[in-house]
This record gives sequence, structure tokens and C-alpha cells, in this order.
Amino acid sequence: MKIIIVGATGTIGKYVTAALQKDHEIIQVGSKSGDIQLDITSPDAIKQFFEKIGSFDALISTAGDGHFGPLGSMTDTDFRKGINSKLMGQVNLVLQGQHYINPKGSFTLTSGILSEDPVVYAAGLSAVNAALDGFVRGAAIELDNGVRINAVSPGVVEDSPGYFPYFPGHIPVKMDRVTQAYLKSVLGAATGQVFKVF
Amino acid sequence: MKIIIVGATGTIGKYVTAALQKDHEIIQVGSKSGDIQLDITSPDAIKQFFEKIGSFDALISTAGDGHFGPLGSMTDTDFRKGINSKLMGQVNLVLQGQHYINPKGSFTLTSGILSEDPVVYAAGLSAVNAALDGFVRGAAIELDNGVRINAVSPGVVEDSPGYFPYFPGHIPVKMDRVTQAYLKSVLGAATGQVFKVF
Repeated sequence: MKIIIVGATGTIGKYVTAALQKDHEIIQVGSKSGDIQLDITSPDAIKQFFEKIGSFDALISTAGDGHFGPLGSMTDTDFRKGINSKLMGQVNLVLQGQHYINPKGSFTLTSGILSEDPVVYAAGLSAVNAALDGFVRGAAIELDNGVRINAVSPGVVEDSPGYFPYFPGHIPVKMDRVTQAYLKSVLGAATGQVFKVF
Repeated sequence: MKIIIVGATGTIGKYVTAALQKDHEIIQVGSKSGDIQLDITSPDAIKQFFEKIGSFDALISTAGDGHFGPLGSMTDTDFRKGINSKLMGQVNLVLQGQHYINPKGSFTLTSGILSEDPVVYAAGLSAVNAALDGFVRGAAIELDNGVRINAVSPGVVEDSPGYFPYFPGHIPVKMDRVTQAYLKSVLGAATGQVFKVF
């Protein structure tokens, strides 16, 4: 398969890339690294990206970030960082990618545990992660030609120790378990699912 | 209590207003009607609104809309209608209202069934409704002074027959049941909850 991995050199993406690159053609996409650079906050950049790449079989996104800070001083601008990056970045990869994906292809997005198990400073990311899970459920029933869409929702991952102090009592999840969830989505047959890895 | 109802003259809001106005001081807010007009898509307008209203005990929002249309032709601009109105409109009522709400006050937002039980044409609203549920869970653990926040998530309501054709097999919910969920949030003691009425 021809598989696009957006966020391929990131904390999770590099494991997913390593797991798939032996058997598949991987296009590694990053904000500043990879084969191709893409700013997912720009719908125009995403449009140009797909025009350049053309058809593909699977798209995995492990990309996007958001604001992490106290609710008490959170502003509209703060909140929209996650909306514009992690949410709309990934949504726009689907809205535009649906016109280029091959029949029976798949989209796999990344949400996260904060949708249902919140931590302090992350109200914006709780919203964004939940939105991605909801979007996957809604989009799955409309995609044509057998195209599938799922989300992987990881807990705090073992390779991100900098986040551990903000996730008290959370058990960091093994990178291998997280990686397998992406393989399940791409190589399996499910659609409209949120694969929770926590 | 001094209760702000944003969307007070709408399909759901008018019932909630009727149920609370005997025993409470209600400030009815609408986009074009009510005591005060407010465009919730404008963070500046929301800021000016709270500066004018001052302190209050409860805020109920039954306001906000979004795009309803095929995923196959959905654009970033379409998708952001719901982001800017139903999601960020309600989020900004909380982000700014938290600085004016009295101790032990409450926020009650409105999401909807599409977060988990999608229909065709509503991928954007599935995302927005899920985001609101996630935001409520995240914000609840940070609000100070005993301030609470919940969401009411209604199914398609009996007073909106125009939507029925788009919700095949859904059982329209009685307005009285929906109204009671808002009373539970405002007059009860729960926080971080999504009250599903479907």
C-alpha cells in the first residue's frame, strides 16, 4: 500500500513508520522534517499536498498540538490553537484527502485519553480529542467506496516523560501497544471506531 | 437565583425559561430576540455582555448552530460554522463567564446525540457535540469556588419536525424530558456530567 504518515518523525509516528515501512510505500510527512513538509493548520497547504501526492491507500495522522494551560486564564485564542491544529488539521486531511484516497482505503487519526479522563490544564485538549472521536463516528457513515476511518486514542505514552507530572496516577502506555492500534486500523476492517490505548 | 439563558426564545430555551421564571430572575438572551441580543460567535461581544450583566448564579446555553450537509463536499469553511457558533460560542460563554459567576454557580451547555449516534450530513455536528461533552469534563475539574458545569445532550426533539427526515429511526424526545435535564443541572449538584436525553 501507499501510506501517508503525517507526523511520521514524531513521538508516535516514528514507531508507526518503522512498523509499516518494510511492507509498504511510506510517505513521511512532518511540519519540519520527513519526505515532505506540511503545515496542517493551512487548508491551502493541505490542498496543494494532495494535488502533489495524488492517490493513496491509507493516511495516518499522528500530528497536531494544542494549548495546555489553566482554565482560569484561558482565552479564545488559546483554545483555538488546538482547534486549528490537532482538530481542523486532521479534519482537513480527511475532507480533502477523501477526494484522492483509493477505494477501500483508510484514514486513521489521533485523539487521546483526555476526551474522557481529563487532567488539569487540558480543557481545550479534552474538547479537541472528543471532537476527533465524534468526527470519526460521523464521517464513517458517509465515506464512499468502502473507505474507512478510525481514531487511535492513546493515554500518556512512555516516550513522553515530560508530560508525566501533568498526568498524576496515569499509567504511561507502551509505545508498542500504541503502534499496534494504528496497525489494527490500517490493516484491519473496522470503521467509525475509537481504539483506546489506555 | 439570577439565571442567564442564552437561546431563551429558541426551541428548547423557551421551555427552560418557562420552567425557571416563576422562582428565579431570568435574563433572556437571543441572537435577535430576548431581553438582550448577543452574537455568541464574537468573543468581543461576549466580553461586553458580561461587563454589562455583572455577577450571576447560573448560565444556561441552548444556543449555537452548525453546518448540515454531505461529507463529500464539506469544506473547512463549512465545518467551522459549527466550530465558531455551537462550540466556541458556548466555550467562550464559560471562559469569560467564569470571571463573573458567583460561588457555587453553574454553567449548563447544550451538545446533542450526534456525538455518539451519527446521522448522514452531520459529521461536523458530531464533532462539535462531542467536543462540548469533552470540554465539560475537562473544565469541571478546574472551575473554582464550587462552580459547576454540565452539558445536556438531547436527541432530536419533538418540536423540531423539520429534522425528523434526517434522523431515521430516532424517537423524538419530549420537550418536558429535555427541560428537566436543564433543571437537574442548574438546581442539582452534579458537575462534569453529560445528561443524555435520548
